[in-house]
Parts: sequence; C-alpha cells; structure tokens
Amino acid sequence: MMLVVSYDVNTTDAAGEKRLRKVAKLCEAYGCRVQNSVFEVLVDPAQLVTLKAGLSEVIDKEKDSVRFYRLGSNWRPRIETLGKELTYEQDGVIMF
Amino acid sequence: MMLVVSYDVNTTDAAGEKRLRKVAKLCEAYGCRVQNSVFEVLVDPAQLVTLKAGLSEVIDKEKDSVRFYRLGSNWRPRIETLGKELTYEQDGVIMF
Repeated sequence: MMLVVSYDVNTTDAAGEKRLRKVAKLCEAYGCRVQNSVFEVLVDPAQLVTLKAGLSEVIDKEKDSVRFYRLGSNWRPRIETLGKELTYEQDGVIMF
Repeated sequence: MMLVVSYDVNTTDAAGEKRLRKVAKLCEAYGCRVQNSVFEVLVDPAQLVTLKAGLSEVIDKEKDSVRFYRLGSNWRPRIETLGKELTYEQDGVIMF
C-alpha cells in the first residue's frame, strides 16, 4: 500500500538535527522523498509496523510529529501536483 | 472530501517568502495546518478547483511544488500520527 509520511522535527538543537537525519533515513529505506519533509512510501503491513516502530524510537514525542496518510493500493489517482515535480516512478528510480 | 496539501516553496529570496505566506493563507481558508508545510483541508469539488487555481497563480512553477493527496470522505481511518499532535477536530477549532 502507499503511504504519505510527513514530519516536523524540532531542529533547534543538534539532537534535533540528528533526529531529522535519522527520520529521513528510515523513510528512505521504504520510498521516495517528494518534498522537504514528505515521503511517499510503498510498504506491506509488516514493513509499516517496522517503519513506525523505528520512527517511534527516533523522534522526541514532545517536540516532533510524524503523520501517516494511507492512500491504499489504488493510490495514483489520489495524488496530484502543481509546479516543480519529481519525475520518477514510485517503484522506479528518481530521475531529475 | 479531505485532502492533504503539502508544499515546498523556494524561500531563497524575498519573493519566495511572499509566495510562502500566500500559499499558507490560501490553504488556511479551507482547513488546518497540521505541520509546517502540510495542511488538511475539507473541500467540495468546486472549492478544490478554486483552491488549485489560487495556488497555481501564486507559486513559481519552476521553483515551488504543491502536492495534493485525496483521502476521500472516509478519511479518519487513513490518518495516523506519532509524537506531538494537534488536538483538534478537523471541522472544529485547533485546541493546543
């Protein structure tokens, strides 16, 4: 299934910068960065559990937030873009 | 229907800062900011056309990007959060 993962990590200190890098790295393992703090990830239910557990361990729950939006399997018609676009196929490579 | 609107606006110059404010203001008219550059908006088809037209006019299509994710009408089960959460009812007011 396709999920949108968006996050706000408080980077007012070095620890926050470190958390931000870790969050991005975790998301990169499952999908593509489409905007600064937005990833589109293709996962099965087990991978989703693993991704959530990893993110839950990394973030500071008082300062940071992660939102998951489930688009399901028929996700292509649910996504539209305006302006600068990544030209990539979600299950392919990012082509700039 | 519920839509997630996420955007990346290039703010390397004053014009970009202005576009960023305008983009946020347009989205605020239809919904709630849930993260730095992520809004959840409740719109009917006509409002969606108006919102898209407004955003399309404001952004620099070479530098900025806006992504729309349609969650449909049964959107609540499609949204999950980790960490810091806005406590609000989408059709209510934001309670911090």
